[in-house]
This record gives sequence, structure tokens and C-alpha cells, in this order.
Amino acid sequence: MKIARYEHNGFPHVGIVNHGKVNSLPDGTDVLETLNLPLDAQYRLQASAGRHHRVPLEDVRFLPPIEPRAMRDFVAFEAHITGMKKAEPGDGSVPEAWYEAPAFLFMNPWSLTAPGADIPMPPLTKALDYEVEVAAIVGTAARDVTPEQAREHIVGYAIFNDWSARDIQGREMQVGLGPSKGKDFANTLGPWITTPDELEKFRLADGRLDLEMSVTINGVQTGSDRLSNLSWTFEELVSHASRDAWVGAGDVLATGTCASGSLAELWGRAGRQDPPPLTVGDVISITVQGLGTLTNRISPQTSTGVPVPPAWSRRQPKESP
Amino acid sequence: MKIARYEHNGFPHVGIVNHGKVNSLPDGTDVLETLNLPLDAQYRLQASAGRHHRVPLEDVRFLPPIEPRAMRDFVAFEAHITGMKKAEPGDGSVPEAWYEAPAFLFMNPWSLTAPGADIPMPPLTKALDYEVEVAAIVGTAARDVTPEQAREHIVGYAIFNDWSARDIQGREMQVGLGPSKGKDFANTLGPWITTPDELEKFRLADGRLDLEMSVTINGVQTGSDRLSNLSWTFEELVSHASRDAWVGAGDVLATGTCASGSLAELWGRAGRQDPPPLTVGDVISITVQGLGTLTNRISPQTSTGVPVPPAWSRRQPKESP
Repeated sequence: MKIARYEHNGFPHVGIVNHGKVNSLPDGTDVLETLNLPLDAQYRLQASAGRHHRVPLEDVRFLPPIEPRAMRDFVAFEAHITGMKKAEPGDGSVPEAWYEAPAFLFMNPWSLTAPGADIPMPPLTKALDYEVEVAAIVGTAARDVTPEQAREHIVGYAIFNDWSARDIQGREMQVGLGPSKGKDFANTLGPWITTPDELEKFRLADGRLDLEMSVTINGVQTGSDRLSNLSWTFEELVSHASRDAWVGAGDVLATGTCASGSLAELWGRAGRQDPPPLTVGDVISITVQGLGTLTNRISPQTSTGVPVPPAWSRRQPKESP
Repeated sequence: MKIARYEHNGFPHVGIVNHGKVNSLPDGTDVLETLNLPLDAQYRLQASAGRHHRVPLEDVRFLPPIEPRAMRDFVAFEAHITGMKKAEPGDGSVPEAWYEAPAFLFMNPWSLTAPGADIPMPPLTKALDYEVEVAAIVGTAARDVTPEQAREHIVGYAIFNDWSARDIQGREMQVGLGPSKGKDFANTLGPWITTPDELEKFRLADGRLDLEMSVTINGVQTGSDRLSNLSWTFEELVSHASRDAWVGAGDVLATGTCASGSLAELWGRAGRQDPPPLTVGDVISITVQGLGTLTNRISPQTSTGVPVPPAWSRRQPKESP
């Protein structure tokens, strides 16, 4: 089942994608509840969908398929970090700590943007970039689950694009606590959520999903990889996140960028910004086998973009209390 | 007004703290809605509170005063980062980027723990630590607000303790994207939320709040600072977070650790782990002028604590698709 949220005649709906159309589900349908239904109930729902309306995919204005409380973004493709480290200070090698456990960060849940939506150019950057990722959606809360148990908690997958302002991110990462404004303005998930049963045919014996991934800028392919190059399974990512902590119902866990799945990695390998950073009007499309195509366009800046003053100690002497 | 969430006779309540007691508010009272009321309505509520019950503070089992969708943790005290950098690789200096803009990270919103609650010892760490911070609570969604406009969005303040497993955090930070499992297991906010009008008398002309902050382990003071040493005002932190991104209603923005407000900073300055890392039974109390005292005890490990295997490339050759 492929489940989507979308607008039709100005109202939000939930529907099932099938044969190039979105088939409506009854008003009030909840995506997470539907993803948590047993497979036979999902099949029945799929068979009965479309009674209210059927809309060709090209006419649909999609909404984010789910609105998670927490989104975790991992960095779990080895070749991506190999390329990125070439552009960072240091000897260019992947730190040993990367291999020990899958590192992740929490994302801004308010910045989830819709499939097909314009992404306004963020202010104060000259290095806007995309990131080609796949995300798993967790159906029920998990804590201290094994990878085997985690399988039951994963109820869907979708394409994920973690938009990044590389120059801002780079300065922030010098502080040591990771990026903040460099990655908090937009994340796109979609265009819909695909349930795990549809991906079983792509699953290798060891649990990895072997899906083709690729990205184009204005129709020209700039990167491709296979999801099976992920260095941990999704079940292991969920298990790790759940160690001594809650992973909540509806949470989104994204893989991090695949090999050649961002401009920054190409810049790191080439030693120069080729292809150039994204500019207004660029159309970025990510296609993942079984999950569809996620397309967004860069639009003009909407933010006032006024930075705050620098820290006190450099700004002026402090007044005495 | 000091507003709290707590359990009484097994039911959750919202109440107002006054003269050593919690005075009940009517069933169904919402903390965020109450914080968004005009000041005169808050005064009337405060005057009428306690009709259902009044409970002495020492008998109250507090709950987290609010449940935010997003929690941002800054690193905005210069002296703390000065001490921390002494323990990290490099020349020990504070990176220039730290002064440019207030760096932050998003926290696990599911790990908010209650004032007074036991904090189970996290697994796989031998370096558990606390962090002495103050958090601002945002009442209404903000985007691209100036520091002047941000003032209207801040509806309360509370003590914040960002519990940290320093050994896990240190390894994760080598990857470059900040801590993940080192900080995702517990964050304590409370014991209640104090409205800004109560803190006006501590506000300096430039907007900083001049509150005394201190922390004890088992009754022995281990650190103290003043909130006025924060290198940006809370209004500037909100403004920065809101640049080209939503800061949501109910979001929590914490300052990061004050000077001497964590063991790790003391370890960095001393070159050895003195005082030692937290152990089971330790009681940590943070007191901030005007905001109360936030106390938690370290209890035995509850997590199964099983780590996931290391990355594929080191584990075994990959099977061919």
C-alpha cells in the first residue's frame, strides 16, 4: 500500500496511490492508524478506496504524509562520509567512531515540507544543497527493542530530502555540536509512504533493502546509489535509537545521504563546487525504486534573514549588575 | 505566576505554586493556554486557584510542566565552552564560529523527565553528568522575528538539566554531527514554569536576566554562575532559531550549560575526573533564583543496553544482490 496526504478542492485528504491515481479514503482517516492496521485490513481498505474521488497523480497537491514529533537523521552510508571528510579539516579519513555505532541528530519537526512544494532559498547561504535519503516510519512506540523486535515497529518507508546550507552548516560544525541553522529550514518526506510488504521482494537475506536511488537537477542525473549500501539495517537503526530512550509512534528515522547523494560530497571529492550550489528555479527530483519520485523547486528567498549580533564577550563590555 | 503540572490522588492536575503550596486550577486547564493569557487574567486565575485542593510542595509529585514538540539546546555560555574545549582534541581554544551565532541542537522530545523523578543510569557509560541550564518557553509560533518581537513570544522560564553520558557523547562527536545517544535519554524541565513578569526585577537594561544559578551533588555545591553571563539574550536565541524556520507554540529553548555547571567542564579544567562521574544514589539539585530548585536522583539501570553491531564494511563482506 502507498498512502498519501493531499489537498483536493481545498480540503486535506488521505488516499491510496494506485495505477497513476490517488484513491480517496473516508474523511477522518488517520495515516498512522492506517499504517498500524493488520495487512489484511490494509488490503481491504485498498480495495475499497476511491469511492469519494480518484485524482490523477499529476493533478494532486501532496501534503507531508505524516507529521512526526521527532525526526532523527543518521549518517549511515560509508561512502558519503568518506567524500564529506575530504572537504573538512583533518586528514580526510573516516573517524573510527563512525564504524562503532550509527550516529544521528534530531531535526526540526516544524520544517517538514510537502512533496512538490517550493523550497524558498534560505538566507545567508551561497551553498544550498540536497541530500538523498530514505526514511522509515515507526508505527508504535519502541524502547530497548532488539533489531528483530524493531521489524514489527516499522510500518512504512518514504524518500527523504534533508536540505542543507553547507556554508552555514560548516561554520556551525566547528563548534562541535553539529549543524543547527544549516539544516533546520526544510526537510521533505514523501511523496507518499510505502508499506513494508511492497518492499519484501527487494529485501536481501541479511535484512537490507536493495533499492535503486538516484537524483537529478533540472533533469540531469547528479548521483545514484543502492539502499543496500547502508551500513546498518533500518531495524538496527531503530534498535539503536531505542536504547534507553523512547522512539515515538509516528517518528521518522532517515538514513543520511547515500553515496553521491549530495553536491557537498561531489565538491569534497572534486575539490571544487562542480556542479554549482542550487539556485532559484532549480528542480531537484529524487527517485527511489518502489518509493516513487520526490520533486521540489527552489524559489526566491522569503525570510527577512537578519542575523543576531555576535556573542557578548566580543560585542561590548558587560554592564555591572 | 508559577504554574506546575503534578499528580494528586493518582490524577494529573495543573496548579499554581504559592507560599509553599500548589493551588489547584480547574480540571482541563492547559498550561500553554494559561501562559498565553493576558497578565490580568493570569492574576485573576492565581487569586482563585486552590478551590479544589491545596497541597504542600513537599507532598507533590510533579510532572513535566509542558510537553514540547521541539526542544532546542544552545551552547551559549562562553566559560562553559572554554572549559569543555580543554578536554577535547585541538589547541583548547574556543572556535571563532562560536562567537558568530548561537549554535544549538534539537533534543529528544520523548525523553523529558519529571522534576523529582529518578534518572535510571544509562547503559554503556562510565561518565554520567548533569548540565545546569535555564530554558525559555515559547507561547505562540514564531518565524523570522526580531529580538524585540521575540519578547512577546516568551511566556515562561524554567530550570533545565540536560543529562549527558560524556564518554558516549565524546565518541559520537568525533563523527562531526554532534551527540546522539550521549544526550537522548533524559532531560528534566521544571519544577514549574515561572512567567516573565516575576523576573522583571532581575532584568538588566540590555535585556539579560541576572539570576543566581547553582548546583549540588548530595548537598555539596559543585558549581555556580549567573544567568547574566549568557552571551545572547533569550530574545536573541528565539530570534536566531526563528530565522527562516518555525519555532512552535510550546517549544523549549535552553541556554546550554553555565560556567562550572557540569562535571565535564570541571574535568576539562582539572585534567582529571574530580568530582567523579555520577553514580546510583546521587542526588543532583539545581537552584536558580526565581525559578526554584530542580532535584533528581540517579537510580539503577533499567535499559537492557544491548549495542547494535558495528557498520557493515568492518563486519563482514556484503552479499551480492
